[in-house]
Amino acid sequence: MNIFSVTILGSSSALPTSHRFPTAQVVRLNEQLFLIDCGEGTQIQLRRFGFKMGRINHIFISHLHGDHIYGLPGLISSLALYGKKGELHIYAHSDLPQMMAGMMKFMNEVTDLQVKYHPLNFHRSAVIYEDKRIKISSFPLKHRISCCGFLFQELPSDLHLDKQALEQFEIPVTQRNNIKNGADLVLPDGSVIPNHYLTLPARPPRTYAFCTDTVVRKEIIPLVEGADLLYHEATFAANLSDLAVKTFHTTTFQAADLASQARVKKLVIGHFSSRYKDVTPLVNEARTIFPETFAANDGDCYEL
Amino acid sequence: MNIFSVTILGSSSALPTSHRFPTAQVVRLNEQLFLIDCGEGTQIQLRRFGFKMGRINHIFISHLHGDHIYGLPGLISSLALYGKKGELHIYAHSDLPQMMAGMMKFMNEVTDLQVKYHPLNFHRSAVIYEDKRIKISSFPLKHRISCCGFLFQELPSDLHLDKQALEQFEIPVTQRNNIKNGADLVLPDGSVIPNHYLTLPARPPRTYAFCTDTVVRKEIIPLVEGADLLYHEATFAANLSDLAVKTFHTTTFQAADLASQARVKKLVIGHFSSRYKDVTPLVNEARTIFPETFAANDGDCYEL
Repeated sequence: MNIFSVTILGSSSALPTSHRFPTAQVVRLNEQLFLIDCGEGTQIQLRRFGFKMGRINHIFISHLHGDHIYGLPGLISSLALYGKKGELHIYAHSDLPQMMAGMMKFMNEVTDLQVKYHPLNFHRSAVIYEDKRIKISSFPLKHRISCCGFLFQELPSDLHLDKQALEQFEIPVTQRNNIKNGADLVLPDGSVIPNHYLTLPARPPRTYAFCTDTVVRKEIIPLVEGADLLYHEATFAANLSDLAVKTFHTTTFQAADLASQARVKKLVIGHFSSRYKDVTPLVNEARTIFPETFAANDGDCYEL
Repeated sequence: MNIFSVTILGSSSALPTSHRFPTAQVVRLNEQLFLIDCGEGTQIQLRRFGFKMGRINHIFISHLHGDHIYGLPGLISSLALYGKKGELHIYAHSDLPQMMAGMMKFMNEVTDLQVKYHPLNFHRSAVIYEDKRIKISSFPLKHRISCCGFLFQELPSDLHLDKQALEQFEIPVTQRNNIKNGADLVLPDGSVIPNHYLTLPARPPRTYAFCTDTVVRKEIIPLVEGADLLYHEATFAANLSDLAVKTFHTTTFQAADLASQARVKKLVIGHFSSRYKDVTPLVNEARTIFPETFAANDGDCYEL
């Protein structure tokens, strides 16, 4: 089975602490690494947690606040120093190239690495990346500046061949791929064995949804419904709901309520305000509404 | 006595490792903090090692390679979020404002904090900061791009009043400051007591010299001569002297030889290539020439 996991590289909000770096996550699908956000120190966290950063070809930036992007110059520079070639795709607000221009101009290491920017749509949900295993979409959130969430949807995998049927019908190697794709088996005498006699159902495709920084948005429920894992910011405890509204962030209760309504399997909360030295009370609050809640900590890896 | 110390925030060269952040150091003179270079993650290291970053008002940038400056946007942004007011002075190559422009334009937190850039002179030594306790100079190094070293010279402190003389001559409070500044004492009968009967010599002023990234430069010996502490890069072991020349860096032997010729009291080497998992052999090499050599490690604090 494909490995599909999410590793937290940074779980703080705007002000990092000595234990929580600013926002960044790695979504791993087998050997492919997708980076979400790139706060300061992302390249250091990638090394610390054993990721080969050269495997990152696609970076998704939720919005242009510094705690989500200040790691980009260092990461790009190091990728170039490591000799990475080809294209590095960055999906972000169309202002990002202008923000990066000064830093990029003086980055004399960049030679064989081409940075390609892809502007996000902040008005409606859109598929921004797709290959044979995964589809990645962006969808609008609501923050002080334009902000997107991201949905990583594994595509349905091939059916599994039933070992017994394989032997019983002596299915030729040449036909096996067709059958895995749903074809029936035609025997030499012309008789047809329907596909469901020959195959076992594939594992249901998995989904990861990432939402930060935002006020809680009921509009996203249909998009993230049933997700195996939802990461949602919970910058503040429930008693600071006024501050959450004012700063366009979410509280523990709001995140848990959203997870519950969207019937996701698991909720990870993060982007904690630096005022919380210990985030256990925040998780406990959320669990009163949605028991399968966990706190994001730098280095945590969630297997889907 | 004034506290005068140097803390290593980052000791790696261009590519950080999980244990070595890119270059940054804090020079502390009592409650005043001066920052030298600002590699990615500097604000995180400042918090990790217990520094109040709001006390930094002056930042000295040796050169514009990313591993010495990519921490600036995050540090400035966090200082603004912490509510720091007034001026933040950055001494660097005159291209720095252009490099930072994109990041600064979108930094909406910056309100009461004014960043003032001061261009460095890369052709000759120059005093760039002075107050009643310290004088800071820049001096040219030789790297692939314009680069400066920095010299932190404590200014001579006042003489100490001799407690015995204080009692014997009943020195009036009004005259004590003059005497500490070198004046003689005139008694009511007109007789003069020379200053050296009344005072004890002040502690000799201390000096810290910082040199990275550079080929070894004999021209700086007169400048750093006798320094209490010399930080000099030693990116490579002695066997990689060809690579050191090619990349405009220094080897262990070269740094140690310079320290020996300049008769400094202590040498700290750093800016280690990421190829060295253990830098003990580099220190041992340097010690064959200059025994008082130590390896820079993130978090190390040297009291002068």
